[in-house]
Amino acid sequence: MRRDVYLKTVPWRQAQELFLDAALGPGRRARTEAEVIPTAEAVGRVTAAPAFAAVSWPHYHAAAMDGVAVSSRDTAGASEASPRRLSREQYDPVDTGDPLPPGRDAVIMSEEIHPLPDGGLEVVAAVPPWENVRPVGEDVVAGEMVVPAGHRLRPADVGALLAAGVVRLAVRRRPRVGIIPTGDELVPAGQALEPGQIPEFNSAILGGMLVEWGAVPVVYPPVPDDPGAVREAMVRAAAECDVVLTIGGSSAGSGDYTARAMSGCGEVLVHGVNTRPGKPVVLGRIRGGPGAREMRPAVGIPGYPVSAVLAMELFVRPLVMALQGLPAPAPEVLRGRLTRRLASAAGVEEFVRVRVGRVGDEWVVTPLSRGAGLTTTLVRADGWLVVPAGREGFAEGEQVEVQLLRSRAEIEKCLLVTGSHDPALDVLGSLLGERHPGLGLSSANVGSLAGLVALGRGECHAAGCHLLDPDTGEYNAPYVRRLLPDRQVVLFPLHFRQQGIMVAPGNPKGIRGIEDLVRPDVTIVNRQRGSGTRVLLDWLLGEKGISPRQVKGYGREMFTHAQVAVAVQSGTADAGLGVLSAARALGLDFVPVAEEEYDLAFLPETMDDDRVRALLEVARGEEFSRALESLGGYRPATGDARRVGGGSWGAMG
Amino acid sequence: MRRDVYLKTVPWRQAQELFLDAALGPGRRARTEAEVIPTAEAVGRVTAAPAFAAVSWPHYHAAAMDGVAVSSRDTAGASEASPRRLSREQYDPVDTGDPLPPGRDAVIMSEEIHPLPDGGLEVVAAVPPWENVRPVGEDVVAGEMVVPAGHRLRPADVGALLAAGVVRLAVRRRPRVGIIPTGDELVPAGQALEPGQIPEFNSAILGGMLVEWGAVPVVYPPVPDDPGAVREAMVRAAAECDVVLTIGGSSAGSGDYTARAMSGCGEVLVHGVNTRPGKPVVLGRIRGGPGAREMRPAVGIPGYPVSAVLAMELFVRPLVMALQGLPAPAPEVLRGRLTRRLASAAGVEEFVRVRVGRVGDEWVVTPLSRGAGLTTTLVRADGWLVVPAGREGFAEGEQVEVQLLRSRAEIEKCLLVTGSHDPALDVLGSLLGERHPGLGLSSANVGSLAGLVALGRGECHAAGCHLLDPDTGEYNAPYVRRLLPDRQVVLFPLHFRQQGIMVAPGNPKGIRGIEDLVRPDVTIVNRQRGSGTRVLLDWLLGEKGISPRQVKGYGREMFTHAQVAVAVQSGTADAGLGVLSAARALGLDFVPVAEEEYDLAFLPETMDDDRVRALLEVARGEEFSRALESLGGYRPATGDARRVGGGSWGAMG
Repeated sequence: MRRDVYLKTVPWRQAQELFLDAALGPGRRARTEAEVIPTAEAVGRVTAAPAFAAVSWPHYHAAAMDGVAVSSRDTAGASEASPRRLSREQYDPVDTGDPLPPGRDAVIMSEEIHPLPDGGLEVVAAVPPWENVRPVGEDVVAGEMVVPAGHRLRPADVGALLAAGVVRLAVRRRPRVGIIPTGDELVPAGQALEPGQIPEFNSAILGGMLVEWGAVPVVYPPVPDDPGAVREAMVRAAAECDVVLTIGGSSAGSGDYTARAMSGCGEVLVHGVNTRPGKPVVLGRIRGGPGAREMRPAVGIPGYPVSAVLAMELFVRPLVMALQGLPAPAPEVLRGRLTRRLASAAGVEEFVRVRVGRVGDEWVVTPLSRGAGLTTTLVRADGWLVVPAGREGFAEGEQVEVQLLRSRAEIEKCLLVTGSHDPALDVLGSLLGERHPGLGLSSANVGSLAGLVALGRGECHAAGCHLLDPDTGEYNAPYVRRLLPDRQVVLFPLHFRQQGIMVAPGNPKGIRGIEDLVRPDVTIVNRQRGSGTRVLLDWLLGEKGISPRQVKGYGREMFTHAQVAVAVQSGTADAGLGVLSAARALGLDFVPVAEEEYDLAFLPETMDDDRVRALLEVARGEEFSRALESLGGYRPATGDARRVGGGSWGAMG
Repeated sequence: MRRDVYLKTVPWRQAQELFLDAALGPGRRARTEAEVIPTAEAVGRVTAAPAFAAVSWPHYHAAAMDGVAVSSRDTAGASEASPRRLSREQYDPVDTGDPLPPGRDAVIMSEEIHPLPDGGLEVVAAVPPWENVRPVGEDVVAGEMVVPAGHRLRPADVGALLAAGVVRLAVRRRPRVGIIPTGDELVPAGQALEPGQIPEFNSAILGGMLVEWGAVPVVYPPVPDDPGAVREAMVRAAAECDVVLTIGGSSAGSGDYTARAMSGCGEVLVHGVNTRPGKPVVLGRIRGGPGAREMRPAVGIPGYPVSAVLAMELFVRPLVMALQGLPAPAPEVLRGRLTRRLASAAGVEEFVRVRVGRVGDEWVVTPLSRGAGLTTTLVRADGWLVVPAGREGFAEGEQVEVQLLRSRAEIEKCLLVTGSHDPALDVLGSLLGERHPGLGLSSANVGSLAGLVALGRGECHAAGCHLLDPDTGEYNAPYVRRLLPDRQVVLFPLHFRQQGIMVAPGNPKGIRGIEDLVRPDVTIVNRQRGSGTRVLLDWLLGEKGISPRQVKGYGREMFTHAQVAVAVQSGTADAGLGVLSAARALGLDFVPVAEEEYDLAFLPETMDDDRVRALLEVARGEEFSRALESLGGYRPATGDARRVGGGSWGAMG
């Protein structure tokens, strides 16, 4: 029966089928056992059997109104023309919810009662039997099914069950999922780190996902890169849990022991799937202790966080849901326009994180960086764009399908700001969300020039730019006229900011200005072509008559101020141009070279958008001014927005 | 400043505005205070401030591949034609994640290494600097914002924060919401009940909703109907919680003390909104203890569960979300065809629970019963249909908008079975969901005839029917030909079932057969016109030459077997026709009168629907047979499905 199939890059759907068939048995019917718990604590749990009403509800004939309970027979024939009199013995006052006294079968509402001086009543209309009465079992009758098996209980379900006298019920035990981080390099998150040490944070991601899927994560201490230790940890977890996950060591390198350890205490079904990221996954089963007959499904999760998240979604989620008797929910899908070409290797199914936004009447989709180690792209991603194995990518402008990670409604409330990177934009976005819950700002750092182009193409709501026109000394407007000759654009001054040369603390190379960047002992790090900072550097170099070829490191491009700063901090460059706040954040020294004007560019038609109005209000607010001040190197702008291009310019009202 | 505005039926949006303005202060900016918690425990919490990276990640230059670390300069000019040799001192073997040794700035992948016998390497291509290296800060640089304020943390956010060295962070304290059930009639759920006593289950519904919205419910013991006691409980809860809810006593009757108590220890802003259900709601504020300056928002929630749920959604949800800095999520909306006319009083905004289904290419919307005390309709509802105050309802066939309570994807997996009521249908649906997680069956009890009509109109996937044709003795097919002359219908035999006369235990009136129903001392309860059971009764009476007018109670109509049974059990009728299982559930005696054939009718085009295939497979399975047996009074059917009408009939393959 032992079946070790070391397959390389099995198509993931096939791998999923193999794995779920093995993990869940014939018909995939394996479930965690039932446990009986108090109904009041069962919200979010899944019924293990149908629940039938223990009592009828209401359990007595109840007045449905405030009024008097009567016998309907006594009112027969009553009308305005010939009212019927009821003596004091023929009625009983009742409030809503009171039981009907014996012999009464209807209630007359307070508003329709005509009391008589002798304590009797006059009735001006016949009352049908059971009028204004909630009869026994009106809601549910004893023995009726209240909820079926396999039902995830919501608050109202729990209320209905309690009303029906079901105070305890059988639900599926939450699956216990063991998580074993592996690797000599792991240290607890928050501990001071030596080079080569990695904080163990993957178990927090996996654990959080499992809780969202209804499972109970059991996180074991990290295990060193030792096949025996990994196997031992696996066997222990298999004895204690329903599913076993390891993190890391799942590839085929010299230090990767997951597959070996798994085959030593169970079986490996699949090693390697044809996805990118996520290829080095191990799918199999582990015996639940020595001599144990039961096999526990096990997954070797790759150590790169993005790969880990994908492996969890593809293989662990459907398993954990099935063990509870729940379907793996289908992701919400959206079609949108791809804003740039996406190349992908054929033969592998690539899952690309994308940013999604609603611009005008259109959904636009922009790929994020693809590195499997980039946790921040998981924070920023709105969805996955899947490139099938048979395709080498998608063309710019193509309509593509995205599997959403956030709801459409959430995404729709987010403003896309594409263009120049500036730390103040993140602060602005945070203030926007604080002031207007749900609104958000998602910034993409492509540089000022590309931002304006994206704006013209309807790929974002606003473009951040700080482009100096050397001929006029004017910022931004000349570039708008040149790049978007047919468009009118509104330039909103966001702030003025200090640019300078970031250097190591204490300025060990004694860099005093742009002219020092040509020195043979100075290596710089640059920003990418099209960024405003690059334009500024080129202008500053030109002013001094320096050719880029004379500057060492000119060709090494970074996409953000922070990346330039960290290159200087880590010693891979001596200098780089950027904003003061980025230098401060890493404790670098800073040689100021220019103050520049940073504008947000909008298309005129979006100025009435509620999100844009809210953004501009926050941008002119006291809090943003204070935040700019504490970032350092900024001056708030106060100028009016101005229209540029399309035949008109000048200040706006 | 005291402002007691006893308004009757304020439009609910206006009431909501008034309440949120008062509860959240100027600009609605009130929030719970920040608390600092371990990041690893923060999934689902909302950031109270933006979180900035404490360290860069990676925090060292890391090999991105298994291979050798080199200095890129040493490889300059290498090519296939003129390889460069690297001595053993010019490289270091590295695994993925290892730190780059000093002096190295690139990694060559294992696959591209040509080792030499002397321990050196041959390089056949120049390596650019930083090739296959994850530089410091590639993911995030110290000082960069990882997540903004007001962000609900997901597992991946927590991972990114831990990677960035953020091990503790400031989140909004979960709002504490006090729940005070009121009413002399309340007893703990599960306790044996006297007439007039009501199990206290509303707090479980409200508490479950609050947990789903991120709040912490604090349930207080029930308070009797006494204005002083209610006020005392309110003041205590206001001192201990951020928001105070009472349940019940919110109307204007003699025993309704909520508004009075609230105005005694704070202020009432609104008493009564123009919704149905949910009208008797009290919105106001309570001082947090004697002499306390702070006022806590308070809501008097109506006692009827459906009203309570609506009041929670309209008034408590936006408050609780805002206190955490979150938006009140907009409900998903769907447009569909209303299957029957819906009348509604003008001047009141009515929220009608509806069942929704996807039949063919169309969404169909069917109103459920509207009683505010019907907890089971909350279980069955897929959404709310809102009838604006200015309308007197909607016409049959009109396109209406529904605010969904379940996702489209969930609703889409549900089969609508309309027609005859049968307890076995619920059992079948439960087995379907157990066998095929996510699939479900939603049955509507409108009677066999109306079910066939609904099938013909495309309002359901299947119709349950058991209609005896007196002329031929044949079941169902003659009715299909008569009711749907132009349609072909597939009749699938589901089971045979025993119908009989349900009577009180011990059969005190000695009822032996249909002929006893005319006795003057016998009152029956009937099923609704168009139900198969009514057709059967009429046929049985006709056979005996009895006119319906001779039968007492013939005009009292119930929609289910269970309701007939409970009428007999509770003594409001002596006899009623129905199935054995319903009689058994309530311990009634049963006088068999006929065995009938129960079919599921489908349109031929739905027979290929995956959901229908799954249903029929389960219907012919061993488990359903066993379930029928234990229900009692059923025989499994085994016959083939047959096509009827549209010019063709006979057995199907």
